[in-house]
Formats: sequence, C-alpha cells, structure tokens
Amino acid sequence: MDAVGYVRELGRRARGAQRLLARSGREVKDRALLATAEALDAARRELLRANERDLGAARAAGLGEALLDRLEITPARIDAMIEGLSQVAALPDPVGEVERLQVRPSGIRVGRMRVPIGVVAIVYESRPNVTVDAASLCLKAGNAAILRGGSEALHSNQALAACIARGLAAAGLPEGAVQVVDTTDRAVVGALVSSPEWIDLVVPRGGRGLIERIAAEARVPVLKHLDGNCHVYVDDRADLDKALAIALNAKTQRYGVCNAMETLLVAEGVAAAFLPAAAEAFAAAGVELRGCPRTRALVDCRPAGEEDWRAEYLAPILAVRVVKDLDEAIEHIARYGSGHTEAIVTEDWERAWRFLREVDSSSVMVNASTRFADGFEYGLGAEIGISTDRLHARGPVGLEGLTTQKWVVLGDGQIRT
Amino acid sequence: MDAVGYVRELGRRARGAQRLLARSGREVKDRALLATAEALDAARRELLRANERDLGAARAAGLGEALLDRLEITPARIDAMIEGLSQVAALPDPVGEVERLQVRPSGIRVGRMRVPIGVVAIVYESRPNVTVDAASLCLKAGNAAILRGGSEALHSNQALAACIARGLAAAGLPEGAVQVVDTTDRAVVGALVSSPEWIDLVVPRGGRGLIERIAAEARVPVLKHLDGNCHVYVDDRADLDKALAIALNAKTQRYGVCNAMETLLVAEGVAAAFLPAAAEAFAAAGVELRGCPRTRALVDCRPAGEEDWRAEYLAPILAVRVVKDLDEAIEHIARYGSGHTEAIVTEDWERAWRFLREVDSSSVMVNASTRFADGFEYGLGAEIGISTDRLHARGPVGLEGLTTQKWVVLGDGQIRT
Repeated sequence: MDAVGYVRELGRRARGAQRLLARSGREVKDRALLATAEALDAARRELLRANERDLGAARAAGLGEALLDRLEITPARIDAMIEGLSQVAALPDPVGEVERLQVRPSGIRVGRMRVPIGVVAIVYESRPNVTVDAASLCLKAGNAAILRGGSEALHSNQALAACIARGLAAAGLPEGAVQVVDTTDRAVVGALVSSPEWIDLVVPRGGRGLIERIAAEARVPVLKHLDGNCHVYVDDRADLDKALAIALNAKTQRYGVCNAMETLLVAEGVAAAFLPAAAEAFAAAGVELRGCPRTRALVDCRPAGEEDWRAEYLAPILAVRVVKDLDEAIEHIARYGSGHTEAIVTEDWERAWRFLREVDSSSVMVNASTRFADGFEYGLGAEIGISTDRLHARGPVGLEGLTTQKWVVLGDGQIRT
Repeated sequence: MDAVGYVRELGRRARGAQRLLARSGREVKDRALLATAEALDAARRELLRANERDLGAARAAGLGEALLDRLEITPARIDAMIEGLSQVAALPDPVGEVERLQVRPSGIRVGRMRVPIGVVAIVYESRPNVTVDAASLCLKAGNAAILRGGSEALHSNQALAACIARGLAAAGLPEGAVQVVDTTDRAVVGALVSSPEWIDLVVPRGGRGLIERIAAEARVPVLKHLDGNCHVYVDDRADLDKALAIALNAKTQRYGVCNAMETLLVAEGVAAAFLPAAAEAFAAAGVELRGCPRTRALVDCRPAGEEDWRAEYLAPILAVRVVKDLDEAIEHIARYGSGHTEAIVTEDWERAWRFLREVDSSSVMVNASTRFADGFEYGLGAEIGISTDRLHARGPVGLEGLTTQKWVVLGDGQIRT
C-alpha cells in the first residue's frame, strides 16, 4: 500500500474511534490507562526482547552512545512508563468541563465546554517511552492518537503498542483509539502531516531537523517546539544572593534541556559586584563563560560573538553580557531570544512587572530559575511538549493543550429578535 | 516592487509597531479608536467621494446589485463604523490580564497572562466597513494589523485608512500599527499568507472561494470560517410551542447568515404532532420545504436528496428529516453538519446534556435559536468572525480570540532541585 493509502486507513480508524472516545467518561479512559500499565508489567520480557532487536540493529548500524542510550528500554524505564500511566490516570478529566457560564440579556446562558481536539498525530524520534507517554495523554484528553516513532525503535514501539492495545481492549475502547505506525516508510510522515481530513493536530517531538521539516510540509496545525535560548537578567536592584543561586541553577542543574539558561544579562550597576563571584561559581561547576567586552573587563573569559547571543548551547557554556538597564535587557532578549523562557532577578516590582509584560516569551519569570518551565512544575501533571508557537498553546502543553473549547448555550425557548 | 518585497516592507513596519502596541495601555489604544471615529466623522465627504469612484468603476464593470450594495458607503454606514469604534473602545482591555495564578509546591506562583498575538493579517472582500471593524479589534487586542480588502473597494479603503492613520497619530501610535494594502496585486495575498516571519495569523473574511484558496496556500495559521450548515433537532420530549418558535426563528429571522438553520430534524414520536403545524408556519413565511419520505407522508413538499442534507442554502429553503431518536439526530449531524451551530429542543435534561456533550460543533444549544451564535449575543462585544476551526478559537471570535496567553512565574528566589 502507498503512504497515502496507508494514512487513509489509519485516519479512517482514528476518526471512527474518536467519537466514541470523545463521549467516554473518565472511568473508561482511566481503566484503559491502568490496564495498559498492567499489560506493560506483564510484558516486561517481551519488551526487553523487542528492544534488544532494535539495539542490536542500531549497534550494527554504528549508532552513537547517546542515541543507543535514548533507544534503550530498561526495567527502570518500564517502571517509569507504568508510573506515568498511573499519574495520567490520577489527573482530573478535562473533557466536559464548562467554564464561565454567564446569563446574557436575552436570557440565554452561554459558556464554554472543554472537548477533545479529535485526531492527534505525534511524530517522534528514538525514545520508545514517548509511545506510552503520548498515548496516555491523548487518550485521557479524549483524542484518537496516531504515533509515528523513530524507525530505529520499530520493534520496541510495536511491543509497546501491543500493550496499549490490550489496555484499550480491557476498557472496551476500539483499537483505532491509539495506532502506532508499523512501517518505517518516511513518506507516511509526509502523508500524515498533509491530511487535514484525517489529522487535526501534529505534535513533532525531536530535533530541530525533524520539527522544521514537518513545519515546512504540514497542511494541518503543528504544535512545535523549537529552540530554547533562555535568558536570566540580573537587575541592579536584584538581591545578589538570589541572583547567583538562580543563575547557577538555571545553567547547571541540567545542561541538555531547553529551559536551561544560555545567556546571562547583568545590569552595569551590579556587574562589578556580581560577575566576579558568579564567574568563580561557574568555573567551579565547570561552565565555560563567553563574555562581552565589559564582562571581560571584570572576569577572565573568551570573547562572545554574535553567534553566542543566538546559541542554544545545551552544554556547560554560558554567554554573558553587561547591559545598561532593563530596557537594554528586554531589547537584547527581543533580538536574540527564541521566545521560550526568560527570568528577571530584581526586588523592584515595577521593573518585574514591566519584564513580565514586555518580554514576549512562552514563560516569563521573576526571581525564579528558568528550569521551572515544565509541565510538572506548573501543575499540568504531565506534558506532551513545550510549545514555542503563539497560537492555541504556548509553553508547557499538558492535557488542556490537547483539548479545545466549544460554546454551549442553555435556553428555555429563547429566540432572537 | 514585487509582492514579496512589498510584504516584507509591510511586515517590517508591522513588527516594529507590534512591540510598542503590545505594551501600550488601554488609554492609548482607546484614544486611537476614538480619534479614528472623529476622523471618520470629519472626513464624511471624502469617504463618500472615494466610495463613489469605486462604485462608478464597479458599475462600469457590470457588477451585480448585491455586490454594489455591499461596496456602498452611506452616511448611515459611516455612523455604524463610528459607533463600532466607540463600542470597541468601551470594551475591557484583555491584554495583561492574569488568570489562574496558583501556588505550586516549590513555592513559585504560576499563572497565565493574556498577550497580543503579534501581527494579524485580515483578507476580506468588498465591504469597506471591515477595514474599520477589523482594525479596531486588532488594535484593542494589541496586535499590528495588515488589512487587504477587495480590489473593487481600493479607493474607499484608502480613504478609511487615512482616517485610521489620523487616529493612530493622535494617540502617538506608529503608522505600522494598522496598514492597509494599497495595491490590487493578488500576489500580495499569496505573499502575506506564506510569510510566517512577518505574519502570525491570517483571518480571511469572505466567500468560500477566498477562504479555501487562502487555507490551501497558507504557511501561517489561518482562522477560517467555512460553511454554516446548522441543525435544529426537535426531540420527542420537546415543548412543541418552543420548538416551533425556535425553528421558525432559526430559519426565518435572516436567511443569508451562517447561523441560520438549514436542516430541521424531528423525532418520529412528535413528527405527526409537530410537522403539519410547522409546515403551515414555514409556508406562511415563504419558506420552501424539502423533506425525507416520512416528512412527505405528513406534509406536502418536494423530496430532499443527499445534496439537501449537505446544503447551506442561505435562502428560504429548509430540508426536513424525521429521525428515530436523539442518536439518529446526532448521527445525521455528525455525517452532514459543518460543525458550526446545532440546537436541540427538549425538556429532558439528560438528553440535552448528551446533545451538548456529543455534538461536535463550535456552538451547541439547548432550547434556543441557532441565530444566537454571534459575538454580540455571547457578550464578546464584537466579533472578527466565526471560526469553524478546532484549534485556538472556535465559534464567534472576539478580542480574546485575537490574543493568546503566556505563562508567568512569580518567585522569591526559588531554584529547582
């Protein structure tokens, strides 16, 4: 079958399942999630065996250690998937919630009801756990899911898909509720993202290459997550102890994550008081600094160039710039930032408020580490990704971002005059 | 200049204005709106003269009466534009509102702040009043607007643009805040909708042809409004007096509107009691009925075919079908509906609730006329359109639909552990 025909079959089954899912109550969806957890627990041996096939092929193909690590399913990772399913089952069901019901002068009551989006396609790379994480969030939000994982994880994903199918069956839900693509034909991705008749939303999860390719080809809405070039601005009214703790945490708590700080901006009024101590702390943590000329007048480091202001290092490297004031910090972020997450450290609430209002990023923070930009930290329970798009959902996207709202009108015979 | 270069210039000016607009307070934006109203009032003669040029060219080109009517600016229509500006000025400013601020276990406070979308392009057809209506909503929501009206309204739109420019100047806002395309080159539309670097959202307003062309070409998000094939379902537990009043109102209050009923579904249990009286009322209103066989056994009318179930008549024609029950009604709507607006008439609240939950349309109603699906009736103050898309905004779109939300985090030194 060609890719278009294959996607049409997936799409038909997904559309068929979608209506039943949309009206399924919480207990049915949670039963499917918990039964999937049980199926994973019962299938540990098969999962490891299937994963070993993928790992063997990947080793034979000469894949690097980082990729092999991402691809690997371990007993602890199975535990984490099982735990994730329980967590999603424990989340409140967003579907059917009615918000802001108000009485209008005509006498009608108007509100908004939260409803599933419909059919969501997730396109991801080598981590097989995404299969279970994405399926569970889509299912709880009442969406049918079509999952297309990395070709190197094909056998692992099929083994996980079998567990999900058992979970769906245990709850009486149709197989079309979660479908895992079982071909490595890359044309299937192209057909998925250009089929608005079958797919309502595509969520790509992976490297920049994958996301840009999908965004360029897509004829359906895409929830994408591009770079995280995050900034911390230390204002001259900052508490410098807080500033140091936040800057260190934002850079060093984890390096390879999109909400790590990549550029530190320091107001000139506190540069001399702050930067030498900060440089010492970063040096102790093994972080290489790259500074503007005024930074380099205070601390010994390599010069930063234009490309450093734009870099998402994802590594123990930090660009540092001394700025005149809040305005220059906001200006720097507007020019070089990626719209992900920025923080100001200040005790001046007027300036804090200006930063909150004027910095155009999906998360804007006062006196907190950028590392908090995360679905769990925000109370979403879990996240399908962090959107750097502007519409529908920005920042960490959880269950609510996988739903939409419709208007509901409750009357008792009103007509329009 | 070629279309791409032209759009780049528009885009640069819009992006430049956008940041200033985003941080402008309500008083500045309202001053611009009210000064535009004054400018319109002062420019009545120029507006009518510019419009006369367009009308003359349109008559010479043999445009039909309906189009000429839409194109015409009258003193009353200038009054309506002025009134519309005052109404938008009187609306609360959505920008900066913080919702759902909650304290998390880490001690950070997390909420969502409403912010402008950025640069919004509106592509519309012959009605020049859209120039002022769209500009005012975009401006109040803090967005820079690029407006591309119908080529037949070019002179009228330029005259209106001059008034808007005066309004912006009076409030100290840059010209780039509202730009009206001053060329009839259709390639500009293509360049606009395929420039995500300059445009964050496109709202096409007009006929199906325009909207489908834009949706097919667009590389930026589109808020589109396709057909309104709306249904009223009269349940066998309906109050038949309410049912008759609602059905008549939904069909006959205005014919050419997207929220008018196009198909009436009647439960078999009340068909004999309801349909003959309803047919009489519709006949008296001059509405032609087209019925399924069971309808035609009760009332004298033309047979309805498959194409009638799909039709958006926008005319005094109504398709009528007798269905077994609520399930068959929901099934009919799922198969033939356009996802715009549907209503159930019933006194049984369990059924009402099922209809609300299970019908997948942008507005779903109980015991009220579909004609209520409207921004003013819903309390939005004004609407930029009615979205039949699923993401970001569904149904009537007002100021809120022209904004988005970012996350704000308020801490006092928290770091992630």
